[in-house]
Amino acid sequence: MDFRIIAQDGSRRRAEIITSRGVIRTPAFMPVGTLGTVKAMSPEELKDIGAEIILGNTYHLYLRPGIDVIAALGGLHTFMNWDKPILTDSGGFQVFSLAPFRKIEEHGVQFRSHIDGSLHFIGPKEAMHIQKVLGSDIAMAFDECIPYPATYEYAEDSIKITTRWARECKAHQNEGQALFGIMQGGMFRDLRRKSIEDLLEIGFDGYAVGGVSVGEPKEEMHDIISFTAPLLPVDKPRYLMGIGDLGDMLTAVDAGFDMFDCVMPTRNARNGTLFTSSGRISIKREEFKIDKSPLDPDCGCHTCRNYSRGYLRHLFLSREILSMRLNTIHNLHFYQDFFRKMRSAIEEKRFGEFKRQWEGVFGHEGNVDPTITGV
Amino acid sequence: MDFRIIAQDGSRRRAEIITSRGVIRTPAFMPVGTLGTVKAMSPEELKDIGAEIILGNTYHLYLRPGIDVIAALGGLHTFMNWDKPILTDSGGFQVFSLAPFRKIEEHGVQFRSHIDGSLHFIGPKEAMHIQKVLGSDIAMAFDECIPYPATYEYAEDSIKITTRWARECKAHQNEGQALFGIMQGGMFRDLRRKSIEDLLEIGFDGYAVGGVSVGEPKEEMHDIISFTAPLLPVDKPRYLMGIGDLGDMLTAVDAGFDMFDCVMPTRNARNGTLFTSSGRISIKREEFKIDKSPLDPDCGCHTCRNYSRGYLRHLFLSREILSMRLNTIHNLHFYQDFFRKMRSAIEEKRFGEFKRQWEGVFGHEGNVDPTITGV
Repeated sequence: MDFRIIAQDGSRRRAEIITSRGVIRTPAFMPVGTLGTVKAMSPEELKDIGAEIILGNTYHLYLRPGIDVIAALGGLHTFMNWDKPILTDSGGFQVFSLAPFRKIEEHGVQFRSHIDGSLHFIGPKEAMHIQKVLGSDIAMAFDECIPYPATYEYAEDSIKITTRWARECKAHQNEGQALFGIMQGGMFRDLRRKSIEDLLEIGFDGYAVGGVSVGEPKEEMHDIISFTAPLLPVDKPRYLMGIGDLGDMLTAVDAGFDMFDCVMPTRNARNGTLFTSSGRISIKREEFKIDKSPLDPDCGCHTCRNYSRGYLRHLFLSREILSMRLNTIHNLHFYQDFFRKMRSAIEEKRFGEFKRQWEGVFGHEGNVDPTITGV
Repeated sequence: MDFRIIAQDGSRRRAEIITSRGVIRTPAFMPVGTLGTVKAMSPEELKDIGAEIILGNTYHLYLRPGIDVIAALGGLHTFMNWDKPILTDSGGFQVFSLAPFRKIEEHGVQFRSHIDGSLHFIGPKEAMHIQKVLGSDIAMAFDECIPYPATYEYAEDSIKITTRWARECKAHQNEGQALFGIMQGGMFRDLRRKSIEDLLEIGFDGYAVGGVSVGEPKEEMHDIISFTAPLLPVDKPRYLMGIGDLGDMLTAVDAGFDMFDCVMPTRNARNGTLFTSSGRISIKREEFKIDKSPLDPDCGCHTCRNYSRGYLRHLFLSREILSMRLNTIHNLHFYQDFFRKMRSAIEEKRFGEFKRQWEGVFGHEGNVDPTITGV
């Protein structure tokens, strides 16, 4: 994997990650393909909207269909018919957020499946083995993602575990697969600093910030985002994990982050919440009943080129599968387009202006539809 | 609308229905787009699999989103982004099979919506008005579809109603829209004969046989199919309504029917039941767990060209939307391909042989997977 910076606008970076399966232009948004499919989308549609990399979830794929199945069916790319880059997380986050039972041991975590309660063990060695079988282009180190709030003592002990596991992951790095380390440390600046120092000593192909958006107030999140970015090496990709709110990503790109993933555009699409150039809208609203216009007159996506708001409202209220398809195409296209615009803004050294403009639409004081559920 | 017969093989017909929105090669299968979408499919995918006409349900569209909405949004074609022919049923079948309450009056039926219990009235005049607003290329007359079993007296009285309503529909036929009459008469040969005589006297652009597959044994169904086909005029399209079992359609094409519609391929797809050249299979079966091969090695559809049985099984067990999409593409492609083959067999005067061959696969003694549910 190669990484090169194309342009800079202050702290903001316009770069490229070069992999054997293709180039990823950053800042980049990675649609989430939890179970070997980005929900409601086909691989062709993902390419059409401009996705250059997707994310696969190690924890979910390990449980369903299981890695023996994926191995027998040729690895994750062949399995799901996606020939561009895939980043896999390590399973750490899900073990700590989804499993109904878990016990941290020296070399990993014993946990019960959230599906059937069966007992499993994943540690750094296992996470690297699973990601080898999945055959992702970028693997993530196995970390402990601590809850919010956490005491200083807990967070301090935890980064020792995360560092030890990161070292074990590095020792088991798979050939032909990039490996990113994950900084933890909760909301404590000195622990965040300690964590990245540990990771830098080990040495990774890229660096991620984890343990953000775990329930903390926006101010604390933005503080951690702005504080951590400059601690990460300039010559490697910087990945802010699990953050997908447009306002938060503007803050993060501003601080110097390159990569993002989140279920927000896909999950919101299925719930009927759509992103437009004038803010979020809920497609079920009565006012769209006989509205002939496209979702977003400024959008060139397949959905906006071919369907009216009235039809999309009808499909949503009728719970038709095409509703989830067309909404997801739109939201992911909106996200990819937003990132294209961010990249241009950095190239043209006008990111500050771009950020102010969009914060007026999607910022925390912005145009948020109060009828939206689940956002 | 024009109709011309291209080739004949005994009683079997290879014909074309020429409409202003395109040519429909018959025998033709019409995928069902109940609520303004063929479930799980996009219009582009429907065209890719070779669909030349789809069916829309008057009853369903009248209730949701309502004809005022469809009128405001430019008619059904524009609403759903489908520019090829559409046939709409009259709503009669659904009023009699879905509505929780109905009362037959002289000029139509009062009924309650199966969605919210609201009271409505549809008769021939209303059915023609709704179909005018929908803007379908072929409209169906409003009929009474009687239950099975029905007494001779009930069936006799009923065809009087159906005839009267057919006459009213004809009187309200919409400009630029073909209108088909529907023969009823239950399982009584003389009533079936009387019904078509009445319809012929009125005169329609095509003739349908309704009231079949309403619970009667297969033998009775096949008897009615074989008995009614020769009663229909040779120079007009003959449509057997709601029949989509492959074996039944072979019988019907053999007898001289041209058009078919059924939710079977789409509904079965969503339930994981797939049609292949060696019979029906349930994709959830354990034996497909690590099966790299396509669903049907003889199939050229998008699903079979790109995905393994193992992946399709995983998607189905994980209840992913892509499962319903890929399964529906396959089943509808299989149906369209089956009809292409039937058309060639008629052109090449070898339909008898074709029918025997496929009855070995899909006939009533054929290879039906006992694990299939809902078939």
